[in-house]
Amino acid sequence: MFKAHHLIGAGIAAIALTAATPVFAQEAEAAAAANPAFIFNTLLFLLGGILVVWMAAGFAMLEAGMVQAKNVSMQCTKNIALYSIAGLMFWLIGYNVMYEGVDGGYIGTFLPKAMPAAAGDTGDYSAASDWFFQMAFCATAASIVSGTLAERIKLWPFLIFVALLTGILYPIIGAWTWGGGFLNKMGFLDFAGSSIVHSTGGWAALAGAILLGARTAKYADGKLTPLPGSNMPLATLGTFILWLGWFGFNGASQLAFATNADATAVSTIFVNTNLAAAAGVVVAILLSEILYKKVDLTFALNGALAGLVAITAEPLTPSPVWAIIIGAIGGVIVIFTVPLLDRLKIDDVVGAIPVHLFAGIWGTMAVPLTNSDATFVTQAIGVGAIGGFVFIVSFVFWALMKFTVGIRCTPEQELKGLDVTEIGLEAYPEFKKGY
Amino acid sequence: MFKAHHLIGAGIAAIALTAATPVFAQEAEAAAAANPAFIFNTLLFLLGGILVVWMAAGFAMLEAGMVQAKNVSMQCTKNIALYSIAGLMFWLIGYNVMYEGVDGGYIGTFLPKAMPAAAGDTGDYSAASDWFFQMAFCATAASIVSGTLAERIKLWPFLIFVALLTGILYPIIGAWTWGGGFLNKMGFLDFAGSSIVHSTGGWAALAGAILLGARTAKYADGKLTPLPGSNMPLATLGTFILWLGWFGFNGASQLAFATNADATAVSTIFVNTNLAAAAGVVVAILLSEILYKKVDLTFALNGALAGLVAITAEPLTPSPVWAIIIGAIGGVIVIFTVPLLDRLKIDDVVGAIPVHLFAGIWGTMAVPLTNSDATFVTQAIGVGAIGGFVFIVSFVFWALMKFTVGIRCTPEQELKGLDVTEIGLEAYPEFKKGY
Amino acid sequence: MFKAHHLIGAGIAAIALTAATPVFAQEAEAAAAANPAFIFNTLLFLLGGILVVWMAAGFAMLEAGMVQAKNVSMQCTKNIALYSIAGLMFWLIGYNVMYEGVDGGYIGTFLPKAMPAAAGDTGDYSAASDWFFQMAFCATAASIVSGTLAERIKLWPFLIFVALLTGILYPIIGAWTWGGGFLNKMGFLDFAGSSIVHSTGGWAALAGAILLGARTAKYADGKLTPLPGSNMPLATLGTFILWLGWFGFNGASQLAFATNADATAVSTIFVNTNLAAAAGVVVAILLSEILYKKVDLTFALNGALAGLVAITAEPLTPSPVWAIIIGAIGGVIVIFTVPLLDRLKIDDVVGAIPVHLFAGIWGTMAVPLTNSDATFVTQAIGVGAIGGFVFIVSFVFWALMKFTVGIRCTPEQELKGLDVTEIGLEAYPEFKKGY
Repeated sequence: MFKAHHLIGAGIAAIALTAATPVFAQEAEAAAAANPAFIFNTLLFLLGGILVVWMAAGFAMLEAGMVQAKNVSMQCTKNIALYSIAGLMFWLIGYNVMYEGVDGGYIGTFLPKAMPAAAGDTGDYSAASDWFFQMAFCATAASIVSGTLAERIKLWPFLIFVALLTGILYPIIGAWTWGGGFLNKMGFLDFAGSSIVHSTGGWAALAGAILLGARTAKYADGKLTPLPGSNMPLATLGTFILWLGWFGFNGASQLAFATNADATAVSTIFVNTNLAAAAGVVVAILLSEILYKKVDLTFALNGALAGLVAITAEPLTPSPVWAIIIGAIGGVIVIFTVPLLDRLKIDDVVGAIPVHLFAGIWGTMAVPLTNSDATFVTQAIGVGAIGGFVFIVSFVFWALMKFTVGIRCTPEQELKGLDVTEIGLEAYPEFKKGY
Repeated sequence: MFKAHHLIGAGIAAIALTAATPVFAQEAEAAAAANPAFIFNTLLFLLGGILVVWMAAGFAMLEAGMVQAKNVSMQCTKNIALYSIAGLMFWLIGYNVMYEGVDGGYIGTFLPKAMPAAAGDTGDYSAASDWFFQMAFCATAASIVSGTLAERIKLWPFLIFVALLTGILYPIIGAWTWGGGFLNKMGFLDFAGSSIVHSTGGWAALAGAILLGARTAKYADGKLTPLPGSNMPLATLGTFILWLGWFGFNGASQLAFATNADATAVSTIFVNTNLAAAAGVVVAILLSEILYKKVDLTFALNGALAGLVAITAEPLTPSPVWAIIIGAIGGVIVIFTVPLLDRLKIDDVVGAIPVHLFAGIWGTMAVPLTNSDATFVTQAIGVGAIGGFVFIVSFVFWALMKFTVGIRCTPEQELKGLDVTEIGLEAYPEFKKGY
Repeated sequence: MFKAHHLIGAGIAAIALTAATPVFAQEAEAAAAANPAFIFNTLLFLLGGILVVWMAAGFAMLEAGMVQAKNVSMQCTKNIALYSIAGLMFWLIGYNVMYEGVDGGYIGTFLPKAMPAAAGDTGDYSAASDWFFQMAFCATAASIVSGTLAERIKLWPFLIFVALLTGILYPIIGAWTWGGGFLNKMGFLDFAGSSIVHSTGGWAALAGAILLGARTAKYADGKLTPLPGSNMPLATLGTFILWLGWFGFNGASQLAFATNADATAVSTIFVNTNLAAAAGVVVAILLSEILYKKVDLTFALNGALAGLVAITAEPLTPSPVWAIIIGAIGGVIVIFTVPLLDRLKIDDVVGAIPVHLFAGIWGTMAVPLTNSDATFVTQAIGVGAIGGFVFIVSFVFWALMKFTVGIRCTPEQELKGLDVTEIGLEAYPEFKKGY
C-alpha cells in the first residue's frame, strides 16, 4: 500500500508512460504483461505454500498435546525454531542443492544463486512463489523428527540436526526425484512426497530414536508404561490443521493451475486426499473398538494422518474407491505398528514413525496399483535408496553428536521436565499437577 | 510433483505432441485448454471447500471447550469421526440423492454414479471441486448435532445417526432446493443454507435431545445447575474458526467467480457476513450486560454464530444496514432462547439449537425483507417442510435406536466421564480437578 | 446456492437474454463481463482479508495464553468484541474518514457514503473486497492495545477506546498516507503499515499503560515479579496464526494481482516476510541462550512477531539478505526493550509495545536502506507525526475516561481475576490452581 489505493491503476499506467529508453520500455512492458497462466500458477504456489506453512502450526499443536505437561513449552520452542531454521537453511543452500543442475545425478550445487528479480520472471510462474512452496515442504520433514524424539532430546543438538536435514539431507533426497536426478530418470514416482518428505522425516526420526533411547519411564522394569499426552484437544486441533494443510501439500504439487485439466487435477487430488484421510479415521476407530473395546482418540488422529501420508505418493490417479483403500490401509498400519515399535522399545512419542515412515512406504509402493507409469521394482528401489541414505547419514550424524556434545538431557532434567530445565518457562504454570 | 518442476511446461507440450490418434489429440487439446472461467469457478469451490472443511475443526474446538473436562476426548473423537463418516457417506450415496435427477421432485437417485474423469469436465467448473464443496457442507450439518447431545450420548449410536444424516437425510433436504426439487420450483430461497444446513442440523439435534434427556446433574432437584465448559479459549478459538470458515460457506455459495458481477457478489457476501456476525456479538454482550450485569463470553460467541447463521439464507441482497439488523436479531434470539430451552428442560450443551435452529429460521424468514424474489409464505412453507421432515425422521430414528441398542450411557459412565469409560484416554490427564 | 447448481450457467445466460430495455441490457452486459484483472485483484483482497481476519484469532490466542488463568475469559471476550466493534465502526465512519476526499490533507469525510452496488463496480476490483481488506487492517490496530493493557483494565472503557481507535484515530492516520494525505505527498513510505497499523496500536497501548498503571503484583515492593502466562501452547498457536495471517497482511498490500509483475511482487513479499520472521526467531533464541542461559519461548514468539512487524514497512524491495537483517534486528529489539519497559515500570502484559511500536519504528526507518524512493528524513517525519498524534490523542482520551468513568478495575477484582468479577465465567473452572 505504498500509495493511495485509489491511485494504483493510474500509477501503473504512469510508470509505463514514463519509460524513456527502449530497453526500459521493454522491461516495463514485460512487467505490465498480464498472463493469466503465470498468475494462476503463481497463485497455486502461494496458496499451497500458505497451507503447508500452516502445517508447521499443526505439528506444533499435535506434539504440544501429545507430550507431558512438563515438556510442552520445549515442544513449542522446538517447533517454531525448526520452522525458522528450515526457512533460512533452505534459502542459504537447500534450494540449490535440490534444484540447480542436478541433471540425472545425485546433488545440485552448493553455490548460492540469487533469487530472480521481478523483471526476470519470464517462466510459467513466479520463481519466488515456487521457492516459498518448496521451503514449506522442507520444514515439514523436520517437524516429523521433532515429535518422535520429544521429552528427552536436548534443544540445541536437535536444532543442529534440523539445520543439516533442511539444508542438505532433505534437499539431496529431493534432488534425486523432483530435481531431475537419478530416481527421476529411473521412473520413480512420488507425487507429493510420501517417501521424499514423510519417509525422509521418518527415517531421520528412527535413527535418532535408536541412538537417543526411550524415555526413562517408558519401558522401566521391563514393562510398558504409557505416558499419556497432556492435552487431547490440542492434539486434535493439530490433526485438523494438518488435514487442512494437506490440501495444499498434495493439491499444489500438481504445480500448475492454468488449464482446465490442471484445475480438474487439483480438484481430484482434493477429493482423493479427503477420502483417504476419512478412511484412515474410520478404519482406525473400528479396529480400535474391535481390538481394545475402546475407541482410542490418538488412533483416530494418527489414522487420519496415515491415510494422508499414504495417498501423498499418488493422489491424482486413484479412483475414489482406490483412494479409500489406500487410506484405509494407512489406518491399519498405524493400529498394528504402534504396538510393534513398543515391543522393539523404540520410543516414538507421537507415533510419527508409523504414520510418516510406514504409511509413507505403503503409499509409495501403492503407486503402481493406480498409475501404470510406475513399477513396483522402481518404487522399491526409490524407497530403499531414500531409506538407506537418510537412515545411514542421520545415524552417523546423531552418533557424532551423541559422542561429542551429547544429545540427551540428564535423568534429572527428564524427571523435572525440559520446560523448567532448558526453557525456564512452564507451559501451564498455574494448573496443579495430579502426579 | 511427479517430475522435476522445471520441466513441467515442456512435459505438457510433449504430451500434446505425442498424441497420435485424432480422438486422443482432441482430448489432449481439450485437456490443455485454458478457460479462465472454468479455473476461477473451480478455484472458488476449492477455496470455499477448504474454508468449510476448516469449520469441522471449529466445531471440534467449540465443543471441546464447552463440555466438562471429563468428556473432552469423547467430543474430539466424535468430531473427527463425524467429519470422516460424512465424507464417505456423501460420496457413497449422499451426492447423488441430492443432485442426480431430482427434477422438481423429492429425492435423487441411490444409484452410484462415477465421479467424472478429468477429460470429461466440459462444464463451467470441475465436477470434483463442486463435490468437495458440497461434501464439506454436508459435514457441517452433522457437527451441529454433536454439540447439543454431548456428555451423555454413546459414541456408536451417535455415529450411526451421523451416517443416516449425511448419507440420506441432509441430501434429501438439499435435493428439495439446491438439487432442483419441489421447494426450488416453489421459489423457496435459502442461499447458503440457514434452513437447509443449519436448521436441519438443529432439528435433528432437537429430536435427539428430547429422546436422550438432559444430563443428570443439569436439572436435578428441580433446579438449574450450570455445568460450565472446561476451556473457554478453545471455545473462543472454535468460534473464530467458524467465523473464518463462514466466508467460504456463504461466499462460495455464489457458485461462480468468473465474471465481474460474480466477484463483486462474493465480495458483498463477505462484507455482509462479517457485519452480521459483528452485530450479533455486540448485541449479545450489550444485552448480557443489561440483563445480567455481566458480559457472558458464551453469549458473545453464540451471538457471533447466530449472526452468521441468520445472514446465511441471504447474504447477497441485504444492504450493510440490513445485514447488521439481521445479524443483531440473531444475537437477540440467542440471549432469549437459551434460557427458554432450560425452562423446557431441553439440555443443549453448546447452545446449538438457539444458534442453528432458531436463528436459522429467522434468517430464512428474513429473506423477503431484502430479496423480492422471495415471499414470506414460500419461506414459511420451506421452513415447515424441512422442519417437519427432519424432526420426524430424526425422532423416529433416535427412538428406534433408543429402544434397541440404546443411545444413552449409564449414569455411572456419565458421572465418571465418557473419556475414561468409552475412549480410554483422558483429555487432560495431569491437571488436578477441582471437584 | 439460490438454485440448483447444475442450472447456474443456463441461469446467467437467461438473465442476459431477458434483458428488455437497452439500459438494462447494458447493465446486464457489464455485469456479465469477465475481466480477469478485476477478478484477480478482487481475489487478492478477499484472500488477504481472510488472512488478516484470521489474525484476530491469533491475537486472541496469543493474549489468552499470556495472561493468568483468572483473566483468560476476559481476554477472549475483549478480542471477539474488539474485532466486532472495529468491523462496525470502520463501516459506520472509519472507511470514509480514511479514504474519501483526503486529497493531500489530514482527514476524509464523516459523511456516510453507500457502498457501491454490484453494478457500479467499474474499477479494477470490487469495492466491497477492498473494504473488507481495509476493515481487517483496522481491527488489527485495536488488537495490539488489548494485549498490553490486559489483566487490569475494565471491559467497557476498553471497548469505548476501541470504538474511537477504529472509527476515527486509525482512519485519520491511514488517511495521511494510504488515503493520499499530507504524508503521502511528502513521500513517506509504509507499505503495509509498520507505523500506520502497528505503531499506531503501540502508541495507543503505551498511553493507556502509563495512565492505567502496572498490575498490582508486577512491581510490588520495588522488585519485578514475573506473572507468567497460563497457557504457552495457546500463545504459540496465536503466533503461528499471526505469522500465517501476515502473508495476507503484507502480500495483499500490493493491492494488485493482475499482471505478472504484481504476482511476482506478492510472491517476493511472501518470501521476505517469512525470512524476516525466521530471522527474528533465530536471533531471539540465540540471544536468549547467550544472555540468560535458557531459551525463553516468549522471546522466540515475540522475535517472530518483531521480525514480521519490521519487514511490514517495506517487504518488497529488500533482497533476501536485507529481509533477514531487518527481521533479525527486530528480534534484537525485543530482547533488549522488554527489560527496558520493566525498568520504566511500564507493564506490557504480552510485550506488544516492543513488538509493534519499537520494531515498527525500526521497520519504518529501515525503508530507505532498500528503497531509494524513501529518505530517512521523511520517514522520521512520518514516525514522529504518527507517534505524536496517536500518543497525545490516546493519552487525552484515556485520561478523560480515567477521571470520569474510570478505566481500572478495583484491587479486589484484580486479585480475584476479571473472569469471575466482570465476565462471570471462569476460563478453566475445573483445573485446580496451584497458587
